[in-house]
Amino acid sequence: MRDHLVQDWGEQRLLQRLFRFCDAALVGDDAAVLALPTERWETSSGKASLVTTTDMLVDGVHFSLGLATPGIHTTDPADVGWRSVAANLSDLAAMGATPLGITVALGLPGELPVAWLEELYEGIVACLKPWNTPIVGGDLCRSPILTVAIAAFGTIHPQRVIRRSVAQPGDAILVTGVHGASRAGLEILLHPPAGQTLGEGDRHSLIRAHQRPHPRLDILAALESLNPAPNPIRIAGMDSSDGLADAVIQICRASGVGAVIERSRLPLPPAFTPWLPPQQALDWALYGGEDFELVLCLPPELAETLGRSLPHSQIIGHITSDPAVLLQDEAHPDTPQRLHLNQGFQHFSAPT
Amino acid sequence: MRDHLVQDWGEQRLLQRLFRFCDAALVGDDAAVLALPTERWETSSGKASLVTTTDMLVDGVHFSLGLATPGIHTTDPADVGWRSVAANLSDLAAMGATPLGITVALGLPGELPVAWLEELYEGIVACLKPWNTPIVGGDLCRSPILTVAIAAFGTIHPQRVIRRSVAQPGDAILVTGVHGASRAGLEILLHPPAGQTLGEGDRHSLIRAHQRPHPRLDILAALESLNPAPNPIRIAGMDSSDGLADAVIQICRASGVGAVIERSRLPLPPAFTPWLPPQQALDWALYGGEDFELVLCLPPELAETLGRSLPHSQIIGHITSDPAVLLQDEAHPDTPQRLHLNQGFQHFSAPT
Repeated sequence: MRDHLVQDWGEQRLLQRLFRFCDAALVGDDAAVLALPTERWETSSGKASLVTTTDMLVDGVHFSLGLATPGIHTTDPADVGWRSVAANLSDLAAMGATPLGITVALGLPGELPVAWLEELYEGIVACLKPWNTPIVGGDLCRSPILTVAIAAFGTIHPQRVIRRSVAQPGDAILVTGVHGASRAGLEILLHPPAGQTLGEGDRHSLIRAHQRPHPRLDILAALESLNPAPNPIRIAGMDSSDGLADAVIQICRASGVGAVIERSRLPLPPAFTPWLPPQQALDWALYGGEDFELVLCLPPELAETLGRSLPHSQIIGHITSDPAVLLQDEAHPDTPQRLHLNQGFQHFSAPT
Repeated sequence: MRDHLVQDWGEQRLLQRLFRFCDAALVGDDAAVLALPTERWETSSGKASLVTTTDMLVDGVHFSLGLATPGIHTTDPADVGWRSVAANLSDLAAMGATPLGITVALGLPGELPVAWLEELYEGIVACLKPWNTPIVGGDLCRSPILTVAIAAFGTIHPQRVIRRSVAQPGDAILVTGVHGASRAGLEILLHPPAGQTLGEGDRHSLIRAHQRPHPRLDILAALESLNPAPNPIRIAGMDSSDGLADAVIQICRASGVGAVIERSRLPLPPAFTPWLPPQQALDWALYGGEDFELVLCLPPELAETLGRSLPHSQIIGHITSDPAVLLQDEAHPDTPQRLHLNQGFQHFSAPT
C-alpha cells in the first residue's frame, strides 16, 4: 500500500492532523494567544523579561533523513523533531530562562510521507513534555529540502540572566556533563565499523547522545536552590552546541578574559578510554559539538555547590585575566595548547 | 571583481556583519532578553497576553530570486525580507496585537553573495521600522535553498483579541483595502506583456503591491479610537494572505455561520476596470491571495465607524446564519455563486 504523501494532502488537512499535538486553545487563528504565568512573571522585586531564540535545522546539513543524500540516514523523523526542540530549549537553559512555548515552521518536500511528519511531531512533543512546554504556533510550506525552524520563548527575572559577557578572572568553569558523546554517536551512525569494539550498551548510549540530546533546563531548579529568585546572581555561560572549546572562547571574548582548561578534568564518556586514542577523544570532547551541555563561569565556591546538585558536572578550569584560552596538560605543563574556534561548525562550507 | 559569497565567510563573520541591523543589547547571547513595555502589559483590568506566530518563505515557492529557478526572478532580496516580515506582522495585525519583536532564522546557499544577505536584512528592517519593532534573535545555517523563517510576537489585552470564531449573523464584513493587486503584480512580473496596456504608474503600483505588501497594523490605532482599551471588543477576523474568499470561508467555518458577499462592493485596484475582463478581475480579487489585508466581521454600525478611519476599506457583505458562503451578483440576483477554498494556496502540490 502506497504511503500517504504530503503532496496528496492539502495544507488544511495536514494542519488538522497536526493540531492533535497542540493545545486546541492555542491554534486555529492567525497567531496564538498565550497568558503569562503570573507567579513567574511578577516577583516582589519587579517584572520578568521575555527571552526569545530561534534555530533552523536542514536535512543533509544538520541531520540526514536519507532524503537529501540517499543512503545516509542518521536520524529518524522523531529524532529530528527532538533535536530541533532541544537546540532551542538549550538556548533558553543557557540564559537561565524558563520555557513558555515554541513555534514550529516546517518546509516539507511533497514526497515526504504524512506518517514521517507525524513522527517528527511526536519527537517535538516528547522533548517538550518534561518541561510542560506547549506548541504555540506553526506554519507548513512546501520546500525541496526538509527544513525545521523553531522559535522558543521563555521568561526570566532580569537579574538572573546568564550572559556570555560577565565572566571574571578567578571564576571556576563548570560544565554540566560529558563532552564528545554526540560526535562519537554520529561517527558510529556514519561508519558502523567504528563502534564495533564497543559493547551494545555503550554504542547505544553514544548514538542516543547524538540523536536525543537533553537540554539542561534542570539547571534552573539547581540555581533556584543555590540562590532563590529574585536574588541577583552572576553567572556567565552559554551552551556547548557548537563545541566545548567554542563555548569557552566565545565566553572569554565576550567577557574580555581568558581561560585555562585542565585536560585531565574534561569529562569524557566512560566508553572513550578503552576505545579511542587519547588525541581523538580530546578532539571530539573539545570540538565535536552538539552535546548541548552548559558551560558556566561563576565564583569557585558557588561552582562547587552547584556541581554537587548536578551529578555529571565537572569543574574543568578557571577564568584568567590574560586573554589566551589554553589547554593545560599535566604531562606537558610547560607547553599549554591554545584552543581555537570550531571551523567544523562554520555551516557554510561544503558538507563534510 | 568576484562578489563575496556566503560560503567564503564564517558564521561568526556573517553574524558580526548582520548585528548592525539589530539592537546591540539584544544580540550576542544564546537568546535575547526583552523587557516588556509595562504600560501595554498591564492595564487596570488585568494583564496583557503574549501573541506568537511564525511563517516560512522558500525560494522558488513563495518568491523567486532566480537561484532556485534560473531566469525567473520576481523578487529582490530586500523584497524577500520585507515580505517575510509583512506576513508575520500581518498575522499579529489580524489578532489585533501590537508587535514586540521578531526572530529571523535563515537557511543560506553557500553561493549566495553576502551583499544579497545584507539587502535581505535591509528589507526586513524597512518593513519593521514604521512599527518600531526590533529583531530579537536569529540563526544562520547552510541550506541548498534560500529559506526565511520568521517568528513574531506581540502583546494584546485578552479581551481585545480578534478571533476567527466569533462572527455572528448580522455582522458586516469589512475589508481594509483592495484585493487582487498582488496577484496582478505577480502576473506582470512573470509575463511582462500582460501589463503592456497599463500606464507606468499603474504597473508600478501593482508590482509594488506584490513585492511590498503593507501589514495592516494601522488597524490598531483605528480600533483604539473606536473603542479605547481595555474595553472588551468583539471582532472576528483574519488576514487575506491566502485570498479573500479563503478568509471569509475560514471565518465562517470557525464561527459556524455563512456569508453573502456582494460582487459590486468588492474593492478592486482602479487599474483593473479598463485592463481585465470582469471574470479575471473577480478571480484575482477573490482567489489571488497575498494582499495581506484584513477581513473583519463586526456589528454594522461599528463597521461603518471603523471604515471611516480606514480610507480604502469597504463593507463587502454580511454574515448569515445559513452556513453557505455566497457571492451575490446584481446582474444575476437569483443565482448566487458559492465561494470555494483556494486550491492555489495548497502549497504542497507542484509549483504553478
